[in-house]
This record gives sequence, C-alpha cells and structure tokens, in this order.
Amino acid sequence: MAAVPLRRARTVSISVRDAIGRTLASGVRAVEDVPPFSRSRVDGYAVMADDVAGASTERPATVRVVGEVAMGAAPPGPIARGQAMRISTGGALPPGADAAVMIEDTEESDGIATVRDAADAEANVTLSGADVRRGDPLFDAATVLTPARVGMLAGAGIDKIDVYAPPRVGMLLTGDELVAPGDPIHPGEIRDINRFSLAGALVAMGFEPVQYERVPDDRPAFEAAFARAIEECDAVVVSGGSSAGARDFTPDIVQAAGPPGVIVHHVRAKPGRPTVLGAVGDKPVIGLPGNPVSALVMLETLGKPILLRLLDRKPNDVAIRARLSQTIDVTPSLEHRIPVALHRDDGEVRARPLFGTSAMMHILAFADALVTVPLGVGRIDGGTMVDAWPLSAPPRA
Amino acid sequence: MAAVPLRRARTVSISVRDAIGRTLASGVRAVEDVPPFSRSRVDGYAVMADDVAGASTERPATVRVVGEVAMGAAPPGPIARGQAMRISTGGALPPGADAAVMIEDTEESDGIATVRDAADAEANVTLSGADVRRGDPLFDAATVLTPARVGMLAGAGIDKIDVYAPPRVGMLLTGDELVAPGDPIHPGEIRDINRFSLAGALVAMGFEPVQYERVPDDRPAFEAAFARAIEECDAVVVSGGSSAGARDFTPDIVQAAGPPGVIVHHVRAKPGRPTVLGAVGDKPVIGLPGNPVSALVMLETLGKPILLRLLDRKPNDVAIRARLSQTIDVTPSLEHRIPVALHRDDGEVRARPLFGTSAMMHILAFADALVTVPLGVGRIDGGTMVDAWPLSAPPRA
Repeated sequence: MAAVPLRRARTVSISVRDAIGRTLASGVRAVEDVPPFSRSRVDGYAVMADDVAGASTERPATVRVVGEVAMGAAPPGPIARGQAMRISTGGALPPGADAAVMIEDTEESDGIATVRDAADAEANVTLSGADVRRGDPLFDAATVLTPARVGMLAGAGIDKIDVYAPPRVGMLLTGDELVAPGDPIHPGEIRDINRFSLAGALVAMGFEPVQYERVPDDRPAFEAAFARAIEECDAVVVSGGSSAGARDFTPDIVQAAGPPGVIVHHVRAKPGRPTVLGAVGDKPVIGLPGNPVSALVMLETLGKPILLRLLDRKPNDVAIRARLSQTIDVTPSLEHRIPVALHRDDGEVRARPLFGTSAMMHILAFADALVTVPLGVGRIDGGTMVDAWPLSAPPRA
Repeated sequence: MAAVPLRRARTVSISVRDAIGRTLASGVRAVEDVPPFSRSRVDGYAVMADDVAGASTERPATVRVVGEVAMGAAPPGPIARGQAMRISTGGALPPGADAAVMIEDTEESDGIATVRDAADAEANVTLSGADVRRGDPLFDAATVLTPARVGMLAGAGIDKIDVYAPPRVGMLLTGDELVAPGDPIHPGEIRDINRFSLAGALVAMGFEPVQYERVPDDRPAFEAAFARAIEECDAVVVSGGSSAGARDFTPDIVQAAGPPGVIVHHVRAKPGRPTVLGAVGDKPVIGLPGNPVSALVMLETLGKPILLRLLDRKPNDVAIRARLSQTIDVTPSLEHRIPVALHRDDGEVRARPLFGTSAMMHILAFADALVTVPLGVGRIDGGTMVDAWPLSAPPRA
C-alpha cells in the first residue's frame, strides 16, 4: 500500500434519507441541540422541584395547575412558585419548571394537583442538549452510516451529508472457455463462476462492480481493455491470466501501463499463489488467479483492504473467536486459509474446517469464515480457540 | 410466534446475476456436473498414468505427443498406450488419459516428451463432477445467497432461481411533534429519528421499508392508516403510540383489527418496556416504543426474529465473544441490553459498555453490538467474557 499514491472515491452530497451504509467523506457536527429543549420523560406535571421537596403519601404537596403543555407546541407560558402544568412524555418543560412528577403519584381536583412523591431538580426530565450539543463533532470522516448513525444525523437536524460514491471496480475476466449460465455449452467449455462470485463479493463489500466484456486471450485486446478499465474505474480486478501458462499477460500489462506497475507477483499463500498486486498511478490493480476459490479468497483477504482505502476505511479487525472442531494439518511453507462453517454448540462458537482443493467451490459455498494458518505453522489442533474472519456477505440475519 | 400463522414473502424468479443477498424460496439441484469434464490442473501433458509409472530424473519415461488440447475445445481425439497430448491448466482430458504431468518435469523434442516424474492415476487432474454432481442437492430453501453461493449456482449451470421478494414492512409512525431534518422546526417540536433509523435497520436486515405518511394522533385516522398498511404489506412496524399516555392507540387498534391481535404488551426489558407484539391474520405487527433507542433495540432483538420468518430464516446464533472492559450494574428485575463498542486489543476482542439513558441516541450510534444482562442478573463484572450480538449493519468492512 505504501507504494501506491492515495486515491479516494468521488464525493457526493446526499440526503440522510439515502445514507444507510454510506461512508462519510468529511466529519459532521451537530447543527442543533438534541433534544432541542428540556423535555418531560413522563406523563404528569411540570413543577418546580422545590415545591414538591419532601412530598410523600403521608405528607403530600399541592400545586396549582395553570395550564397544559401540548405536544409539539411551545409551553403556553412559564410557571411560578406553587404552580404546575400538565405535560405528556416528550413535552417541552415550561420556563420556571425544573422537574416533572408522574401522573401516578398525583391527583387533580378543582385545579389543584396533590403530589405524593418528591422530585429533585432534573427528575424525570431530559435536559436540552443532553444527547448531543449543537456544534459538537458528531462523526468523523470515514464513519460508516449504520441505522443508529443515520437516526442520529436526522435527530441533530442534519439533512445533507458528503459521502463517498461507491468506488467503481472494473472487472476484467479472461478465459475463452468460460460460458455464462443459460448459454449453450460445448465440449471443453465450462461455466463461468468468477463473474458472478466476484461481482457478488464486490457488492457485499460496498463497491460497485463494473462488468466488462470477456477479454480474449490476445495481448493487444487485453491491453486495450485494461487501458479502458483503468480510465473508467477507481480500481481494476483482473481474473485469470496470472497463472504460469502461455496466457500470462496480467503482470506484463500492469507493468507496461505505467508506474508503480507490479508490486507483488506470487504470494506465499494457499489458495492464491499466482496473485498479482499493483497499481497504475493511484488506481489499484488486483490480479486474481483464474481458479474461483483462489480468486474469491484473495479478493477477500488481500484485495478488500486495498479497495477499502478508496473509502478511507480499514478492514474489520474483530474476528469471531471459535473452537476448532477438527485438526488442520497443512504445508508450513505457505500461509493457508481454511474455510470454516460456524455454529453455536454448548454455549460456544465452533469452527468446522471444510477441507478440499481449490477446485471445489462448494467448500466456500458452505463456509461462513476463513481461519488463517500462518506461514511456518503446519498444524492447529482440534479444540484450539482460533480467530474466524467472516466472509463478506450482503445484509442477512 | 406460535400464535401467528406462518406467512412467507412473495416468491419471484430471478437470474443468478441479480441473486446476491437474496434468500432461496426453494431448494436447488445442480443441473450439470462441476466441472463438466475431467480437467488438467497443470500446464503439461495428458498421459496414461501407467506409461509414466516410476519415472524419475534418473529413469525418465518417454511418450509420443499426438496433439494438443485447445482451451475451451473438445480434445482432438483419444490417446492410446504410450501417447500423450499437450494440455493447459483447465484443459479437457482426452479419452484414455487419466493423469497429467507438469511441463516443468518434461522436455519435448521431435514429438517425444521425456517425463522425469511419475504420476499416479488422477494425479494433477480434477475429475468431472468432483466439485458437484449433476442432480445433487446444492442448496436448501431459505439459504442466503453469499458471493460463493452465487458463483456455485452459475458454475452448476443454473440461470434462474426462485427467491423471496424482500418482505415489505410498512412503517406507521406517530408523533405530531416530529419534524424531518431540513424542514423548519418550531418551539416544542423535535427532529424525527425513528423514520430514519428504523428504515435504515430494515434495509440493513434485508427488508423493504414501506414509508407511510405520519399518522396523526387521532384514532380513526390511525385505524385507517393501519388497515391500509396491513393490506399492502407483509408486516407492519408501528412506532410511538404504545407508551402509557393519552395517545396509546396501538394495542387497541391491533386488537380490533382481527385475530390473533395483541399477543404481547409490555416486555420485562430495558430499553423497550412498552413494546407490543401481535398480528392481524398472518401479518405480524411490531409496536415499538416512541423512544428512538428503545425502538431500534426492540426492532433488532424482538422484531427481527419475527420478520425473518417471512424469509423462512432464523436469526444469527453466532455471537462475538468479547471481554467486558467495565462492570455492568443494573436492576435485576428487567432484562437489560447494553450497547457496547468492540475493539481488538492484545489479541482479543474487548467490549466497552456505553452507558446512558434511552434518551441518548449517541450511545447506540457508537455501539457495534448489544450485550444482554438476563432477568434476575444485576451485574456482570468487568473482565468477564460475554456474548456481543452485532447490530444489523449494511455491507461494510
């Protein structure tokens, strides 16, 4: 990442109505106090606490009811010593009042309320600005807008915010032998997986996949398609073309397209060895293996942190701690990522490793998370507590 | 839930291209073998394993090269004993071949390949159907389509699938005093939070919020609006109107709209006490408190499992195990849900409780998850390992 100049996605101004899931491009301050006035937290009477000090069933206090605060309206006036106003939960405290008493603790007759419980100053009241004060910083740039944050923005009177447009990630896929589902298939051809799984993963990560036509296994055509994708997108994902075969154009084309070019070629990871990481100017390029399992795991583990920089964000660092239900035994000369299915058993989370080769997409299809076996570590015993890193998934339970 | 007849959202047939995040309405079987033919996993030669048995650098085997398998094409013909065909990674194994040898272990000259490494039967080969067999059950009904699953469907030749339409959840909000951000605000009025936070949460959970105009605090108008929402939607969320004030219409209106009516009124939980749960026919109704923190926490904890039934789904049962960084001390007579911020520290996940009243929306805005303190338990000591249940959030890192 240090080798690539920082690029941020385009900033757009939107309404909080459309803000769910977006990332703030700049910090936001409250433009109003929340709540904007001191409010009652109960149905009852707004009072001066001094007037009901020491009140009890045995020694009730009495106050004169001088009016009622209507919801959504300013109080009809202030109260003076010995006075009270009827008020509902959320009503605006009249000037002079500093507490509220609950209707259950009172009885009203002939304009006099008998109060059978004492209230201290600020009792049953939410003071203006108790939640957020006007002018206070609310959220920093790069904050992802969750439901509660969207509500908080609206509550603080904020209508328009600057967020990042979803970064456009171009998808350049090679492989003359690949056929989309629904199209007729001929001997020697196989169904395309990557176009669907990688686009789905980009959507699940919050990006906008930009699909290009399949790139023929032909260097000039590949170069032209790559130049166009780099021009039109914030980042480019290439799949296939990075294995050690005759059609290994990706590293050359990335290198030739301009500095910094190829930064990483081959990683000591399984799956994912032939991965290429690089950039053209400030636009990152992720060269994924053609194998669908390798491609998806590498997009998830190496690609995502790079692409998240376009949104000024860091990857999730909160793993799900789980007990490994079976021993993992692998070559220590590579970093391994093992798909696991998570389930709850006996009050704890268990991670069941799903073993198979990278030719087996169904292994990933049943996985919830990945467990990393670091370089130099060949074995993790069943029963060990491990970190399971959830695979990117769209909104779900 | 037992008191409400089962209802499922409408089923729609869509392309796998649009399938990310959707929930399968019926089980799916593979319509093709994956892969559809036996493939080489290496660049090299397709061979008969018997012909290269025992081959080594000292004692190489030789085979006659009778052709080349082009990518995406059927093999030009079979091979016989002593023969081989050039093949690339992913190429179709010709009839007769049962293994592949890597090009690095060979040398070709005058149509003869010298092979310096032995290959057992099936070595460097992915057999047809090794990933998935035609006709095998692939995914059960109610499976959520993650990126890998969408890829797997495409890979197995499946184009069209039946999924649930996003359940339409009507939002009926009361509160004459509430004003949307951007609109002018008058004394006694406050900004609406629920319309934004609850809609955001429904989107984050995978539902389609259906926004209705604000319901005036007037029983006939409320009844009419409720009847319309029940008619038009799969479920209805009502916010406000369930506190013990003069405007407490929700339980009556739900009860009057038809059986089973109100099932739960008031829960022993904080926040969320005045929650109403019920149904009209098979359409669930979630009556949330007007308070934004209570409303969002109750939608998340009681509403979501009910609404997920419309998608045939169960709530997530995999919590994030975290070490509580501070003691929680609450009234044991209520079940409490404490918002926590999660962060990684010293190799483990820490949950920092965010204390405050339900009048403080900023508490939820900085929370990642909720920790439940069960009924009868007043205290959880700092340092205890607890289950943190993530709040619903849209796609993010």
